[in-house]
Amino acid sequence: MTLQPNDARWLTAAARLALRGRPASRPNPAVGAILVKDGIVIGRGWTQPGGRPHAEAIALGRAGAEARGATAYVTLEPCAHRSDRGPACADLLADAGVARVVIGSEDPDPRTAGSGLARLRDAGVSAELIELAAARESLAGYLTRARRGRPHVTLKLALSLDGKIALPSGESRWITGEAARAHVHSRRALADGILVGGGTWRADRPRLDVRLRGLESRSPLPVVLTALAIDGVRTIAAPEDIAGLQDMLYLYVEGGAQTAAAFLAADLVDRLDIYRAPILVGEGISGIADIRLGDLAEAHGRWKLVERRGLGTDSYEAFARVR
Amino acid sequence: MTLQPNDARWLTAAARLALRGRPASRPNPAVGAILVKDGIVIGRGWTQPGGRPHAEAIALGRAGAEARGATAYVTLEPCAHRSDRGPACADLLADAGVARVVIGSEDPDPRTAGSGLARLRDAGVSAELIELAAARESLAGYLTRARRGRPHVTLKLALSLDGKIALPSGESRWITGEAARAHVHSRRALADGILVGGGTWRADRPRLDVRLRGLESRSPLPVVLTALAIDGVRTIAAPEDIAGLQDMLYLYVEGGAQTAAAFLAADLVDRLDIYRAPILVGEGISGIADIRLGDLAEAHGRWKLVERRGLGTDSYEAFARVR
Repeated sequence: MTLQPNDARWLTAAARLALRGRPASRPNPAVGAILVKDGIVIGRGWTQPGGRPHAEAIALGRAGAEARGATAYVTLEPCAHRSDRGPACADLLADAGVARVVIGSEDPDPRTAGSGLARLRDAGVSAELIELAAARESLAGYLTRARRGRPHVTLKLALSLDGKIALPSGESRWITGEAARAHVHSRRALADGILVGGGTWRADRPRLDVRLRGLESRSPLPVVLTALAIDGVRTIAAPEDIAGLQDMLYLYVEGGAQTAAAFLAADLVDRLDIYRAPILVGEGISGIADIRLGDLAEAHGRWKLVERRGLGTDSYEAFARVR
Repeated sequence: MTLQPNDARWLTAAARLALRGRPASRPNPAVGAILVKDGIVIGRGWTQPGGRPHAEAIALGRAGAEARGATAYVTLEPCAHRSDRGPACADLLADAGVARVVIGSEDPDPRTAGSGLARLRDAGVSAELIELAAARESLAGYLTRARRGRPHVTLKLALSLDGKIALPSGESRWITGEAARAHVHSRRALADGILVGGGTWRADRPRLDVRLRGLESRSPLPVVLTALAIDGVRTIAAPEDIAGLQDMLYLYVEGGAQTAAAFLAADLVDRLDIYRAPILVGEGISGIADIRLGDLAEAHGRWKLVERRGLGTDSYEAFARVR
């Protein structure tokens, strides 16, 4: 069995579709599934809020009897374990008569890990795992939780050209413009939790919610990095404590400079979201405090540009941690 | 008379051609000229070292008798003054029978300023001034000298993502990679003078030369910003003293942080060349010291992105001062 010309493109489309399930699918991964027959999409699905139904079940439901003989593109290996919440997706696909399944990432869950693929093949379905970067990227939270026992962490920075977040007086409104701030809210809406340091919390009482029409209910759960308890707000004492943020797949860290540095020094940042305004500040507050770098060589080779766009006169650049 | 469809494209090509004369044309502007007949280039020229021959004379020499009836694209208004170094270009163009002249920028030199255009029209040549941004940009040094009585200043910064140029220890090798450093040398080769602060001079004794094969002779003249005299090196005591750097059209400022800040605080920077490595430094030395900003609003609206490219894993962004 070999790859077919459009396999990677259909899987990439499924990865994009999967984003619709993020973050409401928690604690389950946000999976995307597309059923294609004779080059035509006959069903699409993504993981529903709370984690069920799964993407495959939705897509099969849409396709109905058409599914027989189709190819299924699924970002994550279909589950092989029956649960009281529904049958295993590998069985559903086989029972529907799907001829071929192309899978974007193996499922690290020991209940599936390879057995979804095996189950399909045992049932006579042609199944193939291609470990596509776009699919793995769309599952970053789930894969990070499985491999590292903690949520995937994005550190957001809004900086001047010279890396400042505020004047010496603390004045920080505004570095970036409205388009960048709206983009930040769209990124917040993809996170389960949003974290700031105790200093920022006490100084600014930031709202940390999603202020985009129609997405208000997507506001992530606030978490504060502080040694002191705060009434009504979840706190952690150290970056490593994010492991205990149950059910969270995606954590969005908004600063300030000490908190950014604490997460970086602990090597607990997986993605940098950098918004940059075309301004110079000179003397001011740097976006990142001490990260305990030994020498410059240590700083290299850690970050790879994965996304870039303009936002008004500002720019947005995302970097992924190279591991 | 109106613009023709390709006028802006031919003028832009002439502006690119003009770069070949920079900076050796000093104290004359680096002008580009292209002669076009029936859509075909019949002559090209750029200002020669020392400022003569002018671009128009070179292009006409290449075209010969073919020039009759052609269109000339010239980045700067042809000169109208006869000098003992040669005849006026407006006369040369008219005498050669050029039918039409499209001009990218008026010459602020009071000996020409409009009279080049008038001379052409009086001779029956269809002449048009279109003030094209690309043409004016290619003449930035000359126009800045004429309008502001000083060279055009580029401030170069090689920064981490968080705006640092060194660790707290002063370790600064290397922030950016080889491709970025080679690009810096190509930019040095376009400058008449290269300036660093006294601190950088004494600490690093930088070579400040052009180390690109074939361009070694293009090394700009070193200038140091310092109150103390230095044997064998040109010094200035304050940024404003660049007005006295006779014959210089382009000054390239390489730092350090205090010097960058001094030029910015004096609003004497026309272009920022920012090289950025995909690294985070955290605590370290910022690229720009105090620029005496009153509030953040003051910082906005000053810089416009004019060029961007990747250089290996680094990026290069150029910003022009909005005036």
